[in-house]
Amino acid sequence: MKTAVVALGGNALLRSGQKGTFSEQMQNVTETCQALVKLIKQGYNLCIGHGNGPQVGNVMLQHEAGKKEFGLPAMPMDFCVAETQGSIGYMIELCLQNELSKADIRKDVVTLLTQVRVDADDPAFHHPSKPVGPYYTKEEASKYAKETGAVFKEDPKGNGWRKVVPSPVPKEIKHVESVLKALQDGSIVITVGGGGIPVVKVNGLYGGIEAVIDKDLASALLASSIEADSLFILTDVPNVCIRFRQPDEKRLSRITIAEARKYLQDGEFAEGSMAPKVRAAIFFLENGGKECIITEAGMLGDENAGTRIVAR
Amino acid sequence: MKTAVVALGGNALLRSGQKGTFSEQMQNVTETCQALVKLIKQGYNLCIGHGNGPQVGNVMLQHEAGKKEFGLPAMPMDFCVAETQGSIGYMIELCLQNELSKADIRKDVVTLLTQVRVDADDPAFHHPSKPVGPYYTKEEASKYAKETGAVFKEDPKGNGWRKVVPSPVPKEIKHVESVLKALQDGSIVITVGGGGIPVVKVNGLYGGIEAVIDKDLASALLASSIEADSLFILTDVPNVCIRFRQPDEKRLSRITIAEARKYLQDGEFAEGSMAPKVRAAIFFLENGGKECIITEAGMLGDENAGTRIVAR
Repeated sequence: MKTAVVALGGNALLRSGQKGTFSEQMQNVTETCQALVKLIKQGYNLCIGHGNGPQVGNVMLQHEAGKKEFGLPAMPMDFCVAETQGSIGYMIELCLQNELSKADIRKDVVTLLTQVRVDADDPAFHHPSKPVGPYYTKEEASKYAKETGAVFKEDPKGNGWRKVVPSPVPKEIKHVESVLKALQDGSIVITVGGGGIPVVKVNGLYGGIEAVIDKDLASALLASSIEADSLFILTDVPNVCIRFRQPDEKRLSRITIAEARKYLQDGEFAEGSMAPKVRAAIFFLENGGKECIITEAGMLGDENAGTRIVAR
Repeated sequence: MKTAVVALGGNALLRSGQKGTFSEQMQNVTETCQALVKLIKQGYNLCIGHGNGPQVGNVMLQHEAGKKEFGLPAMPMDFCVAETQGSIGYMIELCLQNELSKADIRKDVVTLLTQVRVDADDPAFHHPSKPVGPYYTKEEASKYAKETGAVFKEDPKGNGWRKVVPSPVPKEIKHVESVLKALQDGSIVITVGGGGIPVVKVNGLYGGIEAVIDKDLASALLASSIEADSLFILTDVPNVCIRFRQPDEKRLSRITIAEARKYLQDGEFAEGSMAPKVRAAIFFLENGGKECIITEAGMLGDENAGTRIVAR
């Protein structure tokens, strides 16, 4: 049985221009799950990772508003990520279960909460860079920075000031054995949501930490940890391109890890967009993976679709 | 190996008078987990259910505040329960993992999101009774009732009007096989949080529904579904009492199902408090269970502590 890890991007759940109502998200997730069923029909054992960008931002805004309006304590980042693993995991599990049922496929879908260990001395902790949560005025930001020790940066688009948190490298997916056993039992496993709940190990004990783990990199680590055959990274374009959106744009259908590295170095892929996906692909291939396919959900099931990155 | 389901009450997480900050909740959960470790040392394979009363109320308030302040869509009840399965599951998993580590016990703790099926024609749907979420003025309540079709009732303590939702009987715990397999693999499983995410099956497909499932009853159904030896229902008193808080109060140490039924009928146990716990115990014993122990966390590990309800 071949195993694949599929990392769902933000737009599998929430599309730009949408408000993110429950019915909008369920509709998006249903479409994504219809695409996943095509992979399952090809005989893949599936393990599903997912992003939580807009959702965890909304949770942080809700905590902020709840504090102002009702005096409820706002919770730390790790707690917020855990909340989104619950809510997004539920939506994917429910929709996938129904799509499997429609396709007459008998498989259990289970969602495992997942902590991901990062190193407490990861250099990222000295350079918080990932903006999260609500926008503040300069005055508010400076006040909160003093009160909480958090770092705030001005939004380059002029929307205000936002807290920035570190984005450390994922080092260990907790429960890898449990994920493997569930896969071996024939279940589809939803895990590593939002890149995982970030934890550090200090004196043998684990604790949550304010950070955001790149979900594609966490999915790549998961894929190599369970020795998956393939890693699918879903995004909102059908292919990785060089000279993206230039008149001579070229869609890539198959590239080697060496080519991927060179394009990265040449700045062909945008940071915060395609670059981290290609880096996640390289990580997987460097750690035992055979192939990583970057494409959009709609192309799943078509063997020749998307960009396939291979070892050589 | 003997298996026990432990249903954690609200005060395992949040105590009256506390604001519910992250550090308060983590401290409470740590104490509860220290008590659970005593059971694990006695050789029990553990499956942990938990309540979410104050937490899901806070989530609903946060959604309400986020809607007012930032225009974010407020989500339905099933989504909110899923959020709390994520956040509470994370806190229990993290603390239990650390307490096991301190006690030199090597066991994996996994948290499974859990849907619980209720009947779409459960009579409870005609009599929504369980108050949830924020308080409104009479005018707001009547406006929202018209807009959303929800039912609102006046709080008997005069705090305002609240939405009331049905509390249907849990019929099926989804993923029972996955829970069993994880237990057989030696893992401790956190599941059925907040009584489970309420879903109904209509024309073969599942969908979430606005309802709250009693967490003790859901834990009892789980216990009988996995054929657990014992069900522990944790609360904030060491024993079930008759003539509770009367001068001639009597602590019960061991009663039969017949005695439990009689006391229930005599109105010895308060609704919304001890009565549903005793009903959950009876359900478990009627469905193959051997014993149900109702007590407080601090008494765990003492074989003679608490109130033991047995078949005869």
